[in-house]
Amino acid sequence: MTVQVVGICDTDVQLAQGYMNFKGILGHEFVGRTSEGRRVTAEINNACYSCPTCLAGLPHHCPNRSVLGILNHDGAMADRVTVPERNLHFLPDSIPDQEAVFIEPLAAAFRITEQVTFKPTTKATVVGDGKLGLLSAWVLRLNGASVTLVGKHPEKLALAGEGISARLLSDVERLDRSQDVVVDCTGSTGGLETALKLVHPCGTVVLKTTVAGNHGLSLAPIVVDEVRVIGSRCGPFPPAIAALESKRIDVRPLIDEVFSLDDAEEAFRAATRPGARKILLQV
Amino acid sequence: MTVQVVGICDTDVQLAQGYMNFKGILGHEFVGRTSEGRRVTAEINNACYSCPTCLAGLPHHCPNRSVLGILNHDGAMADRVTVPERNLHFLPDSIPDQEAVFIEPLAAAFRITEQVTFKPTTKATVVGDGKLGLLSAWVLRLNGASVTLVGKHPEKLALAGEGISARLLSDVERLDRSQDVVVDCTGSTGGLETALKLVHPCGTVVLKTTVAGNHGLSLAPIVVDEVRVIGSRCGPFPPAIAALESKRIDVRPLIDEVFSLDDAEEAFRAATRPGARKILLQV
Repeated sequence: MTVQVVGICDTDVQLAQGYMNFKGILGHEFVGRTSEGRRVTAEINNACYSCPTCLAGLPHHCPNRSVLGILNHDGAMADRVTVPERNLHFLPDSIPDQEAVFIEPLAAAFRITEQVTFKPTTKATVVGDGKLGLLSAWVLRLNGASVTLVGKHPEKLALAGEGISARLLSDVERLDRSQDVVVDCTGSTGGLETALKLVHPCGTVVLKTTVAGNHGLSLAPIVVDEVRVIGSRCGPFPPAIAALESKRIDVRPLIDEVFSLDDAEEAFRAATRPGARKILLQV
Repeated sequence: MTVQVVGICDTDVQLAQGYMNFKGILGHEFVGRTSEGRRVTAEINNACYSCPTCLAGLPHHCPNRSVLGILNHDGAMADRVTVPERNLHFLPDSIPDQEAVFIEPLAAAFRITEQVTFKPTTKATVVGDGKLGLLSAWVLRLNGASVTLVGKHPEKLALAGEGISARLLSDVERLDRSQDVVVDCTGSTGGLETALKLVHPCGTVVLKTTVAGNHGLSLAPIVVDEVRVIGSRCGPFPPAIAALESKRIDVRPLIDEVFSLDDAEEAFRAATRPGARKILLQV
């Protein structure tokens, strides 16, 4: 299909810098148009659907999978991209291309709600005020939790919007051991340590970002406080599409700058700028 | 009450070596006799039952708690010991003193079954062939799981008994990414890394032993494979008592040697011997 818009994800920046020895075309957050003229986006894991892991209902964990723009499958930073038909999701006209690009990362945030149940009495804190942190905070808020967003950047915390308590990392001591669920979206090895300080005994920590390199920390608090630590990766597209269609989540504050695909190098430089939000490529 | 028998736990050995700066009388696995002549053992956490954590139903995590023989409460390696009345459990005559001493660590093994559900289709592996590893393997077997015990000591693995597959750590590669639940009872920082290799995507790792010192490992597999890591500590006494009373778990192979309390120093030396099983003190 032809590609309309692609987003640059932090993973793309890492892959461009040599992570996973990636060779090929990047791009896994995109809007395209099929040969029949239908606007689509696509899930990124291309599973075999025949191995024991797939047959156990876990195609996202298929050991034979390729991953769009990440592993053995060329991505969408190109005029055209090819994906398995079963991975396609058709887009309602009411979601503009530049917002529909957020469906993949928003789905990753919705993954948390498949793994943990939220109620209005659930005190949930998201640590990390980057794009995934903000998307996660909005999703937990939409799922009824009482949400705090913790970060280092006042200008990003300001994007949290109504109904979310935003706090600087330097000012979270009074939250110690009070949170039912803490989501680590920091993208740094220090995130888990912060999360373990904030979480209540028998509470849940969701690890959302992979960190290259070793965590050098004591895991004794996990045992002593009987904490549950859950890894969380890709998520379901339908709730992400529904949240954008119904305007219950507004991703527009996350859009930073739009470049032409021809200016991709400049766009990648912009994506690594401190404080950068989402950089888009228009094809 | 008067004390009849006390067990030496690995935690006692660590406390005697300076862990947690413990001062006082050790001993938290014991059988005593009340002034009315009733045989009892007791839970070890002495909670306040009035703080928010207790009122939330988590007295084991009460921040004001003392812990028998571990934290601010003299233990049972003495002629007499005092515990809160609500912590007492009366013992059936059919459980001899030397077996009843195992109720506290056996309860800790039963804690796993409160946190994770086991079925005959559940492939569960316990890593670590020490006392807690064996007790945990027996409990998971009793709860219907298909159990593998992994360790470094052939003579300890031989204690696993019927219905449990025992394997040397050097011979577990073919179990890689196959286990639904892996319980880390190694007491060493390497245990989690082994567990993360054995567990299936979206599977569960139960961390049973606290390790002093930092884990220097990559936690990326937790995220990529969406593993659930659950800390697990003290557990329920009633199923432990019932399992010993009904002889469905036989702890006698774990008894190593019995010393008089007067020979406690020699007993502690015996408890630190490589390959030592449970050392008991007769009062």
